[in-house]
Amino acid sequence: MTVRIPCGALTTEHIGQIITLQGWVQRRRDLGGLIFIDMRDRSGIVQIVFDPEGSKDAFTTAERVRNEFVVEVTGEVIARAENAINDKIQTGHIEVKVETLHILNESKTPPFSIDDDAEVSEEVRLKYRYLDLRRPVMQNTFKIRHETSKAIRRFLEDKDFLEVETPILTKSTPEGARDYLVPSRVHPGEFYALPQSPQIFKQLLMVGGMEKYFQIVRCFRDEDLRADRQPEFTQVDIEVSFFEREAFLAMIEEMMIHVVDKVRGTTISGPFPRLTYAEAMARYGSDKPDTRFGLELIDVSAIVENSGFKVFSDTVANGGQVKAINVEGQAENYSRKNIDTLTDFVNRYGAKGLAWLKIENGEPKGPIAKFFEAETAGELLKATNAKDGDLLLFVADKPQVVADSLGALRLKLGKELDLIDEAQLNFLWITEFPLFAWDEDEARYVAEHHPFTMPMVEDIDKLETDPGAVRAQAYDLVLNGYELGSGSQRIHKREFQEKMFKLLGFSKEQAEAQFGFLMEAFEYGAPPHGGVALGIDRIVMILAGRTNLRETIAFPKTANASCLLTQAPSPVDEKQLDQLHIQLLRENERVE
Amino acid sequence: MTVRIPCGALTTEHIGQIITLQGWVQRRRDLGGLIFIDMRDRSGIVQIVFDPEGSKDAFTTAERVRNEFVVEVTGEVIARAENAINDKIQTGHIEVKVETLHILNESKTPPFSIDDDAEVSEEVRLKYRYLDLRRPVMQNTFKIRHETSKAIRRFLEDKDFLEVETPILTKSTPEGARDYLVPSRVHPGEFYALPQSPQIFKQLLMVGGMEKYFQIVRCFRDEDLRADRQPEFTQVDIEVSFFEREAFLAMIEEMMIHVVDKVRGTTISGPFPRLTYAEAMARYGSDKPDTRFGLELIDVSAIVENSGFKVFSDTVANGGQVKAINVEGQAENYSRKNIDTLTDFVNRYGAKGLAWLKIENGEPKGPIAKFFEAETAGELLKATNAKDGDLLLFVADKPQVVADSLGALRLKLGKELDLIDEAQLNFLWITEFPLFAWDEDEARYVAEHHPFTMPMVEDIDKLETDPGAVRAQAYDLVLNGYELGSGSQRIHKREFQEKMFKLLGFSKEQAEAQFGFLMEAFEYGAPPHGGVALGIDRIVMILAGRTNLRETIAFPKTANASCLLTQAPSPVDEKQLDQLHIQLLRENERVE
Repeated sequence: MTVRIPCGALTTEHIGQIITLQGWVQRRRDLGGLIFIDMRDRSGIVQIVFDPEGSKDAFTTAERVRNEFVVEVTGEVIARAENAINDKIQTGHIEVKVETLHILNESKTPPFSIDDDAEVSEEVRLKYRYLDLRRPVMQNTFKIRHETSKAIRRFLEDKDFLEVETPILTKSTPEGARDYLVPSRVHPGEFYALPQSPQIFKQLLMVGGMEKYFQIVRCFRDEDLRADRQPEFTQVDIEVSFFEREAFLAMIEEMMIHVVDKVRGTTISGPFPRLTYAEAMARYGSDKPDTRFGLELIDVSAIVENSGFKVFSDTVANGGQVKAINVEGQAENYSRKNIDTLTDFVNRYGAKGLAWLKIENGEPKGPIAKFFEAETAGELLKATNAKDGDLLLFVADKPQVVADSLGALRLKLGKELDLIDEAQLNFLWITEFPLFAWDEDEARYVAEHHPFTMPMVEDIDKLETDPGAVRAQAYDLVLNGYELGSGSQRIHKREFQEKMFKLLGFSKEQAEAQFGFLMEAFEYGAPPHGGVALGIDRIVMILAGRTNLRETIAFPKTANASCLLTQAPSPVDEKQLDQLHIQLLRENERVE
Repeated sequence: MTVRIPCGALTTEHIGQIITLQGWVQRRRDLGGLIFIDMRDRSGIVQIVFDPEGSKDAFTTAERVRNEFVVEVTGEVIARAENAINDKIQTGHIEVKVETLHILNESKTPPFSIDDDAEVSEEVRLKYRYLDLRRPVMQNTFKIRHETSKAIRRFLEDKDFLEVETPILTKSTPEGARDYLVPSRVHPGEFYALPQSPQIFKQLLMVGGMEKYFQIVRCFRDEDLRADRQPEFTQVDIEVSFFEREAFLAMIEEMMIHVVDKVRGTTISGPFPRLTYAEAMARYGSDKPDTRFGLELIDVSAIVENSGFKVFSDTVANGGQVKAINVEGQAENYSRKNIDTLTDFVNRYGAKGLAWLKIENGEPKGPIAKFFEAETAGELLKATNAKDGDLLLFVADKPQVVADSLGALRLKLGKELDLIDEAQLNFLWITEFPLFAWDEDEARYVAEHHPFTMPMVEDIDKLETDPGAVRAQAYDLVLNGYELGSGSQRIHKREFQEKMFKLLGFSKEQAEAQFGFLMEAFEYGAPPHGGVALGIDRIVMILAGRTNLRETIAFPKTANASCLLTQAPSPVDEKQLDQLHIQLLRENERVE
């Protein structure tokens, strides 16, 4: 009797058994009158052997076989000769002596070889994604993706959460990113929108008494794409009624610890550190700091405000900041030319320059050293904890520019100096976010997270007098410098939600037209509630050790939102547009 | 110390404990100077009591409380007085003596009461879906939905299937139902389509070596909606490489048995019966027969072809059929007037009339009885197994009309005569479907399932000579008269797929433009593969004992594809359309 077994599962235990395998030809070698084939399936690779003295038919067929042919073989598992044993692979002690071979499908020569070492452009990989997906590293990434979603689901299910599906064809709410729109055939001139998140529906589910909801759900944003954005992305969306922040954050921590355990088999422990937004910006110049290494930003404004170096003193006098990074022990390794490169780098973030000092014999050296009296110099060294051989880098500018430029420089130096332990997983909560952000283009406040976030109780009296200073009951979960997602306590009373829309510049009519149904729902016994949404793609990317979201998505879009495999988007029949009551803008009507 | 406990979980075991509850006010009664409130959360209901002699503050606040207010109470669990015990509810032996009461949110009087007996139109329920969702029957339905998806996932995960997500923004492939389209902002004049199913992507995943794939996934069809259709629906999509039909169907059966066990706690057993398409049409007039009752269709064409009743004999002579249903023991209960009603009913399905006979003293009676000689009458009775008191109903027409009208009549009578055991779950496979269906409008063959289905090997030689007679390697899973979904062995070679598109009337260029990437993928070692897709909404509907798909979807659309809660679809800003390079058709340009 023949038994069907995954290629990678064969071991010396199977010796003597007649088995049947199905899979792909990884490689064929003709050697000493025999044909050897490495046969591959999802489970791994096994060596199969054709001997013309054994089965002539199988041998003759095997001569036709090329890489990536799909074959079915039956044969006996035998021990390899001592000198042919390969300890590097699971099946390295055995091989299969083939008796029958069927070619299930042929293959042209693939444009790249199916292994992890293949050097091939991403464009070609995306066009032939079905070949790319056969590579071990991709197979492993999608196994990790599967295990991640599975671990999250099982954790939440065991905590009595219900997964409830919310609509993909929903209502356009222009607040936030651009919506993808879907014209309605039945309602001429009307459109559905694809959801940027199920935010409103999950809040309605709370009003509907679901109490503990989650969903692993696709969301959509028609944004200009960057390396770490996709038009569609997947998040785990979680919401609870009778929200209590400490219990909730502890549960999310427990969930992430569970995921890391299940997916990587490693143990991390809680509670995760917390930083306020203000502290994160001060120390790292970022609201999603990578805390796996130091190089923290140190505010030296108070020390240098009266120094003779006018760039510094004027900046402070004009309400700006002077901050430094101490690049320990690197004074010798950074020449002027190197530092010029760093200066070019911070220029991109708006910084006008990068001042520097090197410490020698307990004293700062360099072109600007002369501006600092001994006392100031001493204070600078003390504040930055600078010792001989250290390099101090300074940016003096408006606080936002200082944060952006030194924050980015810190990350660049962290990588450049190999300060980051890639195996480490540094989870971190950022709390006390500002409720509003000032939008220069629209000359109004917009919601930093979304318009449904509760302000901190102690800041409510500043809502009208000083909106920019109001902090939100919101928190982001950060991992290794990536924002995994954010959550908040939501508004659950009509009057408060109305007030929020007013502060965001909505007229009463606009608020009613767009969100009237939600505010009405709040009038019928809406419980206090809150939750979080975490990006699955990004979690998988980090856990799989990849650096690009596209690596975690089976059929991703490129930076211009195209699918290189299927050629989506594509032109459609005019008849289809007619049915949808739309037509294309003529060339001359197009708005750029 | 206070402990937070779900309302419905309180039992006599908690007597003496001080607990905190959060939930909704189901009902308030003022009785004998006390206030009694039924307090509800997702877990159930518990009675709480306010005594002015106990906590004056709580009592005073309780006087303000109305139905659906959200409250938090703390108090002691006490035993109810003997005469106040309610055995009908879990918590009927205890109540909570409230010490503190907080009103977390108020509620206007809801438009309908939050219980299962509420008589309320579906329109109002959908507008206030968040209130409707609080009703126990809805809470239970979404628990069943959750448990169904969970059982399916865990089953497949344990069988080593990987869940892989496929794109929602994909390419329009006009074959099949109408696509929902999404205009691209980045590519003027181009569109994404929402997937009618992940069919092509799951096949590409097989080419990509995933071997065992599943996904619980949203799909979209812009169809004219019927009671059992929604613009978006959820299916469990399963595909395997090296597909072997018997093993695959057995696994799907095992999965459904597992789901029924987990969700309903009942045991059903396999193997599920199988009917060929031809047999199902012959015996039930339907390719998705409800086999929970008899009333099968009996072909009497050969018996009546030479009878004196010209309606019958002419029909047979012209290539039509005469079929009968024996409505056992119902001769007396169906008056001429009743039968007229049934005649009106079959007219709707195209039947020109409904002939009938009643059996008395071993002989057929009725207006047409005189046309049948004793021998023919005897054969009729024998073929239909008719006995005294039985009613025979006949339709004579083209086979399709006979099937449609008698098939529908059979279902109507099954319900009317209460022949259906609602507790029963009759799973059934329908096999040997036709590969093609003739499309009258387009005057060409279209794919009965989809263009990727393999024909049965024994029919391949008829592909060009007699396409209508070619059967597919396809199978539908049917439950209680509903099609849960269908599956097939797929085509995995380029030449065969090209041939199929040609047979479906595609030009070489059309096939290449729409499906060239798939055919190209088949050239690079595509394994033989096949799978199935089953509708989750429909499975849940049946398992939850509901009769409408809308009951199984948290935020469904109405028959004209609107959301009554959010008012989607809706008009959007012209600016949004400009960005998408489209404009509305002017009134006079509209195509009806």
